[in-house]
Amino acid sequence: MRLYSMPSSGNSYKVRLLLSLLGRDCPTFDVEYETTALDTAKAEGRLPFGKAPVLELDDGRLLPESNAILNWLGEGTDFVPADPFTRAEMLSWMFWEQNQHEGVVAVRAALLYYPQRRHLATPERLAELLDRGHALLQVMEDRLAAQDWLVGDKASVADICLYGYTCTAGTRGGFDMSRFPAINAWLDRIAALPGYKALDA
Amino acid sequence: MRLYSMPSSGNSYKVRLLLSLLGRDCPTFDVEYETTALDTAKAEGRLPFGKAPVLELDDGRLLPESNAILNWLGEGTDFVPADPFTRAEMLSWMFWEQNQHEGVVAVRAALLYYPQRRHLATPERLAELLDRGHALLQVMEDRLAAQDWLVGDKASVADICLYGYTCTAGTRGGFDMSRFPAINAWLDRIAALPGYKALDA
Ligand SMILES: N[C@@H](CCC(=O)N[C@@H](CS)C(=O)NCC(=O)O)C(=O)O
Ligand SMILES: N[C@@H](CCC(=O)N[C@@H](CS)C(=O)NCC(=O)O)C(=O)O
Repeated sequence: MRLYSMPSSGNSYKVRLLLSLLGRDCPTFDVEYETTALDTAKAEGRLPFGKAPVLELDDGRLLPESNAILNWLGEGTDFVPADPFTRAEMLSWMFWEQNQHEGVVAVRAALLYYPQRRHLATPERLAELLDRGHALLQVMEDRLAAQDWLVGDKASVADICLYGYTCTAGTRGGFDMSRFPAINAWLDRIAALPGYKALDA
Repeated sequence: MRLYSMPSSGNSYKVRLLLSLLGRDCPTFDVEYETTALDTAKAEGRLPFGKAPVLELDDGRLLPESNAILNWLGEGTDFVPADPFTRAEMLSWMFWEQNQHEGVVAVRAALLYYPQRRHLATPERLAELLDRGHALLQVMEDRLAAQDWLVGDKASVADICLYGYTCTAGTRGGFDMSRFPAINAWLDRIAALPGYKALDA
């Protein structure tokens, strides 16, 4: 097994974090933006959708999409609930992350973080993303004010998934995290899980 | 069971289509854009993420996100493969749909289809979405030129999911579908499934 992983990216970090929480060793092949390693991985067809992360199995099969990889690695562990409805709710949060949260919270962070993107970071765009991001974070806040984990009664891959870009929403994205005490407590709960590893670790 | 469904929307249509293919009766509660029904459903907390579709179970539990609903309804049927890796690949396509395809193919269609959105449909935006959409449709074309269904050897909820907005990519979205013969053959295969029902049926 081998993980094509972008060191700076929350989508790749989700997978690195779950592997670490599961105590699984998995060699990574780094494909950072603007490196020949990324171009080569694309040219050789290792990234089926043209993006990282991708998990390569020992027999060569390739699995793209961070959240599909989380489900694959999490299946049969404590991080994927056995109850069918809880599983379905877990997927709801993960699809919401890809459809709503990532396109706003991660995008604002990327505009501010990657020097090559700064020319796209107009004041209007940053302001719009700030408002939309606060509204999306409020959805998580409401949920996490009522329960410790997004679904069920323990950490699931939905939590790992949303952690990917929420953990840097303040530092990279410039969102005002002081509005979200329940999210902050949840970020701390995740950072306290045995085997936890930080984005830049 | 009851489905909060937006008649004009591909995300809601995916669920209506699967219900029909499964021969399952499910009353729908229509929440079209700019109707009081939509405002009421939101105000009463029936749409956890503020969007349709949402499946309401008989005990009142609510499941949002079209693709999570497809997984929930499809579990245990022919539309969710038993093989673990095929399931994981199915989820890859469904996350890709929410992260890439929907934000381009569905968005261009919405800009052209809903009169209230036309002011957002600048020539630059339409041109950019056209190029990006053709590139995304090419990803599907390459896959479907090699196999009849997106994953495994029969229709799965990944096919139903991608059908939702691909079926109107030409008519509503203005994409040049003559470039994609394998997609067109796949659209025909889905329309020939027993129990098929069209978007406006
Ligand atoms: N939906 C994908 C998104 C992955 C994604 O956007 N990856 C970016 C980095 S965050 C990437 O690999 N970009 C490379 C490129 O576009 O050239 C997932 O969740 O894995
Ligand atoms: N990721 C969601 C997206 C659903 C969505 O965008 N629904 C739109 C119609 S296509 C909606 O209900 N909009 C109502 C609103 O935003 O007020 C899904 O797949 O179910």
